[in-house]
Amino acid sequence: MLSNAGCPKTMLSIKDALDAVEGRWKLLILFALAEKPKRFSQIAKEVHGITDKTLSKELKSLEVNKLIRRTVLDTFPSTIEYAITPHGLSLEKVLDELHFWGLAHRKEVIGK
Amino acid sequence: MLSNAGCPKTMLSIKDALDAVEGRWKLLILFALAEKPKRFSQIAKEVHGITDKTLSKELKSLEVNKLIRRTVLDTFPSTIEYAITPHGLSLEKVLDELHFWGLAHRKEVIGK
Repeated sequence: MLSNAGCPKTMLSIKDALDAVEGRWKLLILFALAEKPKRFSQIAKEVHGITDKTLSKELKSLEVNKLIRRTVLDTFPSTIEYAITPHGLSLEKVLDELHFWGLAHRKEVIGK
Repeated sequence: MLSNAGCPKTMLSIKDALDAVEGRWKLLILFALAEKPKRFSQIAKEVHGITDKTLSKELKSLEVNKLIRRTVLDTFPSTIEYAITPHGLSLEKVLDELHFWGLAHRKEVIGK
């Protein structure tokens, strides 16, 4: 990859991937939903420190990127549930690599 | 990884990795240096659109993160060269995964 130095298409796809998970909340929300589908209030409780306004915005962004799906359940009163999609789950391998590299990086930079 | 939902250490290492490559310039600079060690002016020419001030800041950040190494060469006048480190090269697998997922993501979201 690093040897594809000049290829703008490679850079574009890497940027797409980074954009989809950027910020401090998206991955935390995906982690919360990886367990099982949840309602807004449940997610808000599990993702510590997030405001309702930000959660709302991030859920929208994750939905547009097809990483989660929003479903209106046929209950009374109606309830809305958020679930991770197969595409969202496909981030697994990327997150694995980021995780392992992040561990090695911490060791390299701060030596522990 | 996504099933390690509640693990803060996992989240931390992923965040470390994302931080190391965030922004629009760091990867472009690493790509330029993956080919061979280069001087400031060469990098500035190859990374289109970057200002000297930003390049200087980003090189510093990459150096602190041990992704590149800055060497003062024993020439007259002295020249400074930047080279990617083995740790910088170890990003290869992460970038591969980001690249492949980014391609799939583009297909999924905008269907092309």
